[in-house]
Amino acid sequence: MLIYNVRGYYVRKPPLELDYEELELNYREEVVSALAAAKSVVPAMIEAGRGTLLYSSATAALRGSKANPLYALGKFGLRSLTQSLAKAYATQGIHVVHVRLDCVLDTPGVRKVYGELDPESMSNTDDVAETYYWLHRQPRSAWSNEVELRPYTEEWTY
Amino acid sequence: MLIYNVRGYYVRKPPLELDYEELELNYREEVVSALAAAKSVVPAMIEAGRGTLLYSSATAALRGSKANPLYALGKFGLRSLTQSLAKAYATQGIHVVHVRLDCVLDTPGVRKVYGELDPESMSNTDDVAETYYWLHRQPRSAWSNEVELRPYTEEWTY
Amino acid sequence: MLIYNVRGYYVRKPPLELDYEELELNYREEVVSALAAAKSVVPAMIEAGRGTLLYSSATAALRGSKANPLYALGKFGLRSLTQSLAKAYATQGIHVVHVRLDCVLDTPGVRKVYGELDPESMSNTDDVAETYYWLHRQPRSAWSNEVELRPYTEEWTY
Amino acid sequence: MLIYNVRGYYVRKPPLELDYEELELNYREEVVSALAAAKSVVPAMIEAGRGTLLYSSATAALRGSKANPLYALGKFGLRSLTQSLAKAYATQGIHVVHVRLDCVLDTPGVRKVYGELDPESMSNTDDVAETYYWLHRQPRSAWSNEVELRPYTEEWTY
Repeated sequence: MLIYNVRGYYVRKPPLELDYEELELNYREEVVSALAAAKSVVPAMIEAGRGTLLYSSATAALRGSKANPLYALGKFGLRSLTQSLAKAYATQGIHVVHVRLDCVLDTPGVRKVYGELDPESMSNTDDVAETYYWLHRQPRSAWSNEVELRPYTEEWTY
Repeated sequence: MLIYNVRGYYVRKPPLELDYEELELNYREEVVSALAAAKSVVPAMIEAGRGTLLYSSATAALRGSKANPLYALGKFGLRSLTQSLAKAYATQGIHVVHVRLDCVLDTPGVRKVYGELDPESMSNTDDVAETYYWLHRQPRSAWSNEVELRPYTEEWTY
Repeated sequence: MLIYNVRGYYVRKPPLELDYEELELNYREEVVSALAAAKSVVPAMIEAGRGTLLYSSATAALRGSKANPLYALGKFGLRSLTQSLAKAYATQGIHVVHVRLDCVLDTPGVRKVYGELDPESMSNTDDVAETYYWLHRQPRSAWSNEVELRPYTEEWTY
Repeated sequence: MLIYNVRGYYVRKPPLELDYEELELNYREEVVSALAAAKSVVPAMIEAGRGTLLYSSATAALRGSKANPLYALGKFGLRSLTQSLAKAYATQGIHVVHVRLDCVLDTPGVRKVYGELDPESMSNTDDVAETYYWLHRQPRSAWSNEVELRPYTEEWTY
């Protein structure tokens, strides 16, 4: 099982202020590295006839943003890649999932940046991990390929 | 926990050939009954502070059809209803999921209609049930509200 | 050309408070009537080898709502129907469009309900009409079937 | 008005066979260049208080592919970028549209690759151009930001 849990480099800037180095760096971390990770494990998984790749992503994979376009760009790319991987290697037993974390994760890093938030407004990482583990265990006659996770307090639109 | 596993009445006919009785019947079974089921259990669930509603649906919830418009109509309605229920009662502990069965279920009824199909091309109902059970067990800080299930052999588009 | 510009009956109530008469009335106005309108004009259009059906809808066609579930229910159904009509009769020259009005329309009725709003925050009905007219004129080798319209000031997500 | 009508480099290969140079080249042509084009015209458009950017894209912007993942990757990125541009600069009069060409274009280049196809199965480029021109003329109180175009003969899913 591979869990790809990388947040690519990004800065919050309107689109016209992005420079090309930022675009490249984001792409390499969100997309190129995600494919490199697959390249490094999938051939052996195919030989074994089974394997799971879980890619952590975000709701930004579904919508552009005026304030945070780089983050959306990377996540759109990641989603495209995970769909292609899922479709290309499923019949060889490879289960690929795009996990859309529609939440703020309750981690020390987040608390450092945002200060103390109500824990009920966040997703607990152990709780998130349980669904990751479930996805790994799904029998192959009934796989999910795109899954979203959010706290019960989240005001979501889609 | 409620599992709503109803396939409403439908006939395969182009849209202009549908009559109003067929429209009504489909709506009552797919949408009105789905809400009736929620009405019958959610108030007690709210009192208990927790509960799960799992609605079986289909990929037809996402696209209209020239040959089978009535089926799509019902599933669009069901999806709309499940989203509204999920959003309205989540903070009271009610977990509502639209389960998109992007598959043919391997059941005696299906075999009777379609003849013998390759079991690898279908979803096994026990395997499907495992994800239903998982959804019921998801901790509330990391819920899924729309989940799709398909066999590893499925050629899916979205 | 048919323009179906009906807003079905709805009340703003959480899902569990909806009664069955309200569900039926909404369905009849949003979906059943929309099909009745198609039935009354499409056969003659098919004979003529051309025709346009423009259905006014809303962003509610894409997402459920905790506060306004009935409105979303009707618009999901309307969208499903327009897709099915579009797919079923396109090869006979019938152009069907779901127009998602992602806006408040600048009309006397709206001003009466909401008071004076900034006209820049609303869509002008003449401006909306121009795209309706354009859709009617689209050549059949390059048709749109789902179009959204919003003012340049709108904060949209999708 | 800017029309960005570039098809980035791509090869039809399963995801694991893509090399990093191919990923980079595709990204530069589909995404980085699309932003460079915006950078070169939008500031003057903002000064003028108006301007239109029309980006030609494809249905591949909405779904990954086992056979053609690179093409999908570029178009997902392009779509993300156009949404961000549209949202960031709309209030300054900049109209950005992602035009999804859900069609084969009837051009000499296409005929050379595919041989003689039925013209009714393709979109005529003059017909496509008429909608591009219409998008440029849309009044700003009723803009479209994502438009699809397909021939009346197309079997579409979404």
